[in-house]
Amino acid sequence: MAVYTHLGAEELAQLIGEYAVGELVSAKGIAEGVSNSNWLVETTGSGDAEGFGGTRFILTLYERRIDYADLPYFLGLLDHLASKGCPVPRTMHDRSGASWRMVEGKAAALIEFLPGVSPTRPTPAQARAVGAVLANLHLAAQDFPGARANAMDFPASAAILEACGAEALATIDPALPAMIAAAREAAALDLAGLPQSQTHTDLFPDNVLMLGDRVTGLIDFYFACTGPMVLDLAVTHAAWCFDGANAYRADCGAALVEGYQSVRRLTPQERALFAEVAKGACLRFVASRAEDWLDTPDDALVTRKDPMQFARRWQFYQDHGAGLLAG
Amino acid sequence: MAVYTHLGAEELAQLIGEYAVGELVSAKGIAEGVSNSNWLVETTGSGDAEGFGGTRFILTLYERRIDYADLPYFLGLLDHLASKGCPVPRTMHDRSGASWRMVEGKAAALIEFLPGVSPTRPTPAQARAVGAVLANLHLAAQDFPGARANAMDFPASAAILEACGAEALATIDPALPAMIAAAREAAALDLAGLPQSQTHTDLFPDNVLMLGDRVTGLIDFYFACTGPMVLDLAVTHAAWCFDGANAYRADCGAALVEGYQSVRRLTPQERALFAEVAKGACLRFVASRAEDWLDTPDDALVTRKDPMQFARRWQFYQDHGAGLLAG
Repeated sequence: MAVYTHLGAEELAQLIGEYAVGELVSAKGIAEGVSNSNWLVETTGSGDAEGFGGTRFILTLYERRIDYADLPYFLGLLDHLASKGCPVPRTMHDRSGASWRMVEGKAAALIEFLPGVSPTRPTPAQARAVGAVLANLHLAAQDFPGARANAMDFPASAAILEACGAEALATIDPALPAMIAAAREAAALDLAGLPQSQTHTDLFPDNVLMLGDRVTGLIDFYFACTGPMVLDLAVTHAAWCFDGANAYRADCGAALVEGYQSVRRLTPQERALFAEVAKGACLRFVASRAEDWLDTPDDALVTRKDPMQFARRWQFYQDHGAGLLAG
Repeated sequence: MAVYTHLGAEELAQLIGEYAVGELVSAKGIAEGVSNSNWLVETTGSGDAEGFGGTRFILTLYERRIDYADLPYFLGLLDHLASKGCPVPRTMHDRSGASWRMVEGKAAALIEFLPGVSPTRPTPAQARAVGAVLANLHLAAQDFPGARANAMDFPASAAILEACGAEALATIDPALPAMIAAAREAAALDLAGLPQSQTHTDLFPDNVLMLGDRVTGLIDFYFACTGPMVLDLAVTHAAWCFDGANAYRADCGAALVEGYQSVRRLTPQERALFAEVAKGACLRFVASRAEDWLDTPDDALVTRKDPMQFARRWQFYQDHGAGLLAG
């Protein structure tokens, strides 16, 4: 949540001048995105060759936490999905046709601004809408020509937790070391036979813009990858369907799956594996948060996310997951 | 530079509903303002009784670093200046007529969004424009009925540097302890006879929005106070007229003063005291930065501002200040 790179007014104006979007009117660094610098930029507008003549954009400067070799996948996927009517931001192409360019040694992209705000206490109607949009995304992405491996797959989570070690994990919470064996179990799942597409895999409410019950934008595709569609649904389920006290919200869970299946029916195999996949999805967040927790000094000013939040959700799927998609 | 308080979409929508500005469309936390949380908010719009029907606003949540008893002064001054045509943001009044309200235990105000970007390498034409706008502000504020003491006046700077102590200051830079005596000297200046008005006193380029050479907004009035107008000009001079290597930019300095005097002629007394007042202005930033430096652990993630930057500018005014306004 920060602007990591300072870009002066003169640099910003020059950069904006590389695009057919008119003159720079305003630029505010925004506290969004954990690994990139972002500005909400306004221009006098003029449209571009592709015909979207907005005057507001998100300028993203990619800090080195992402591999620039992945940019054509991320930005190409957004253009592909947008062209099929999915509510994702398109990328402006500069006057030379490029979707990104280098600025101060970093890659930069000018991305369509989408209205909407992220729900913090999603309602069932909102969960249903997100489920339907996610299924549409999966269908729309099936003919996308690119592919990207999931760097945070189940074996990766198991490796992270093993590298943390039981002793260190116990310093966070006595229940955490048991997650190592759980992650090994998830890593052994055979997901290869599940239907695949391009997937978001990080669709927390933060990454969804809504106006009322309507989804106006899915954002932050920097974990997008090729993989099982049901994993994406499971991540979204784990991220959307628990309240602040970590209690399962059955109304939101049912609505999310209903919304998804109103567009794309899950296969029997996906339904059968849903609980196991959801457990694996939880462990991904347990692993990354535990690693961050142990890497961050106690007195650092940044807020650490508690890995136990998703360890408790793992326990929910362990205890109650089997019945979730029954019926 | 942060958003210190989390406000969810639901809280934001409810808050916006208290104003006659339409429905919430978007809200982005912005990395602006060192002591408050700010969002760039967009609404469907509808105008208000005062007749400014914007759809974009800055929502500011005042963290406890400012005294809420000062809010009527700050917000009232903005309204007063805006009504006289100064390029400052007006404050929206809620449906009950209040210019601020409490949200989550903190004061919040909805403030007009102004276009423009802050110059990072000001040109003489930009400095001239800022000088003229500053003089207009001083004239427009003369019949403002409020008053506020300057909490960061010259005696306050001297007290801060004395409290830091020569020994601790020397750990930052061997030249810094000499600033204690300099600050005592500034504190002894008699400024009471200088012409007074309401003053911004923190008009760094960061706090000025411009489109080309035109000033579109002066922002961040949270150091505004009643005091000598020439002090405000001196702060602006010290903040605008040195380059990244701390070399004096005579072209910008001359243009700033020319711009100011094109609207309001300095009195002989103001001209005679300018160099001394500019030295005192520099010491204010030396003092606050030295205090921050000593209060911030070496390994903290926040960027400390080097107090020596303004110690070097103090030296410039000491060596060359006498001739600055000659002729």
